[in-house]
Amino acid sequence: MNKPHDDQQWPQRITIAGVGLLGGSVALAIRRARPSIHITGVVRDLTKGEQWIQAGILDVATDSLKEACRDCDCVVVATPVDRLAQIVIASAQASPEACLITDVGSTKREIVAAVGKVPTAAKKFVAAHPIAGSEKSGAEHSTASLFDQKTIVITPSEANDEEFLRRASEFWTLTGGRILTMSPDEHDVHLASVSHVPHLLSALVAKMVEGPAQELVGSGWQDITRVAAGDPEMWTAICAANRVAIIRELDRYITEASELREIIESAADDALQTWLTKAKNAKEQSRELR
Amino acid sequence: MNKPHDDQQWPQRITIAGVGLLGGSVALAIRRARPSIHITGVVRDLTKGEQWIQAGILDVATDSLKEACRDCDCVVVATPVDRLAQIVIASAQASPEACLITDVGSTKREIVAAVGKVPTAAKKFVAAHPIAGSEKSGAEHSTASLFDQKTIVITPSEANDEEFLRRASEFWTLTGGRILTMSPDEHDVHLASVSHVPHLLSALVAKMVEGPAQELVGSGWQDITRVAAGDPEMWTAICAANRVAIIRELDRYITEASELREIIESAADDALQTWLTKAKNAKEQSRELR
Repeated sequence: MNKPHDDQQWPQRITIAGVGLLGGSVALAIRRARPSIHITGVVRDLTKGEQWIQAGILDVATDSLKEACRDCDCVVVATPVDRLAQIVIASAQASPEACLITDVGSTKREIVAAVGKVPTAAKKFVAAHPIAGSEKSGAEHSTASLFDQKTIVITPSEANDEEFLRRASEFWTLTGGRILTMSPDEHDVHLASVSHVPHLLSALVAKMVEGPAQELVGSGWQDITRVAAGDPEMWTAICAANRVAIIRELDRYITEASELREIIESAADDALQTWLTKAKNAKEQSRELR
Repeated sequence: MNKPHDDQQWPQRITIAGVGLLGGSVALAIRRARPSIHITGVVRDLTKGEQWIQAGILDVATDSLKEACRDCDCVVVATPVDRLAQIVIASAQASPEACLITDVGSTKREIVAAVGKVPTAAKKFVAAHPIAGSEKSGAEHSTASLFDQKTIVITPSEANDEEFLRRASEFWTLTGGRILTMSPDEHDVHLASVSHVPHLLSALVAKMVEGPAQELVGSGWQDITRVAAGDPEMWTAICAANRVAIIRELDRYITEASELREIIESAADDALQTWLTKAKNAKEQSRELR
């Protein structure tokens, strides 16, 4: 049996299941905060694993989730959204009873529900979503500062006791982020609004440019469409996992766009200026919150 | 009578009518290319004019357009879109016969048509649109490099002869930009597609965020909405000047968004991934063109 860890020292050994941009950045951020923490990475490709060890991201790499989970205090599952639940459950089953399981998924309702069907896993799993990322993918783009001052949403389930919740909060605070707690449903509805649908509109703006107009894009267009370079497979999985909220939100956007169209068509320039001013104010308020 | 200018030396004296971000940056870019050029600014507020002289943007500031145009080789009209035509005509009437009049307006059809009704002005006016800018306004944000490698669209009218077209191209090349020539109509249709409607969608994304969701916005949202901080008055004028093309383009976007909604609702994940891949490819192609 493992020696019980001194609370001050928790965690001593963590496992990152899925070493991409987010998993790699969690490792670097935790290492920055606690250089003595031992970090094991679960990778599909051991050659890459060796590369991440050389880069100082991992201490050890393995392709065996079981082996990586056998003796650790916390597992961070950082695979694409559509594989999260399965790996969270497997990690819970392979790890010590006190081991915290958390994740980085962009959607929360589906995964919390799926893990909830396995009570022994549900107890240990505190779902999380750090609001940080990049259109780039791969651990080679990881940075220790990715989560600094960023919001980390924690979405507890009824299966979580105080101790696991406290540890999840402690763990994510080590990355440099600010913890915000809400239900998985609330999370998914809000994220559809501020992330998933905006991402789809960014892709829409990119997709609509054709022929000679391509030479006329300016810096505004480049900013609006930056995230459209994101991984299509990852975003397809996010849309699949948050379908209902995304459709509801997309409808709200389409309705607003149609109203805007009427304002422009009717030459109601005062109304248009008011509309644009509201948008500007919302933008500026979001900056103040940062 | 003015001594005829040596062609190598053209222009010797330029006037900037409206010294904001764009007007100020034209002055700085031209000064960088030809330090000996004399630059007069037409300002409403002479205290600000003095400030722009101190900042090295202008040599002289005046609130009299007539005075500023009396003896110059080129006038750049850089006021908001809704005041452009009137000031272009007044500049043409107040300046020497050989003086080139150009502008920086984001829409071209309306202004070229309005100036076209005054044949003496139409002859001298070669409309232009440098695809460069910022959500910031005011000459204090001017930079000499704003136009470097950027596309400068020139939209000739039938009233322009070869000599004026050549000079317009020569003038704008001095700013560091790349010249692209098209008709005013083509310009407005393309710009509705790559600039005006994307701007409205950026504002839409900013405007839709409410309540607790505000704390969940990430860097993607911040990029998508950057231009939503732009001046509402300026953008209202742009929409008014390009109403027809903007509505047509907005309809095309709303139709595409509705099709996307159907793809997501029907759980056609392969189709969604194909759709997102097309957007990613369009984005990446636009980078290669830069």
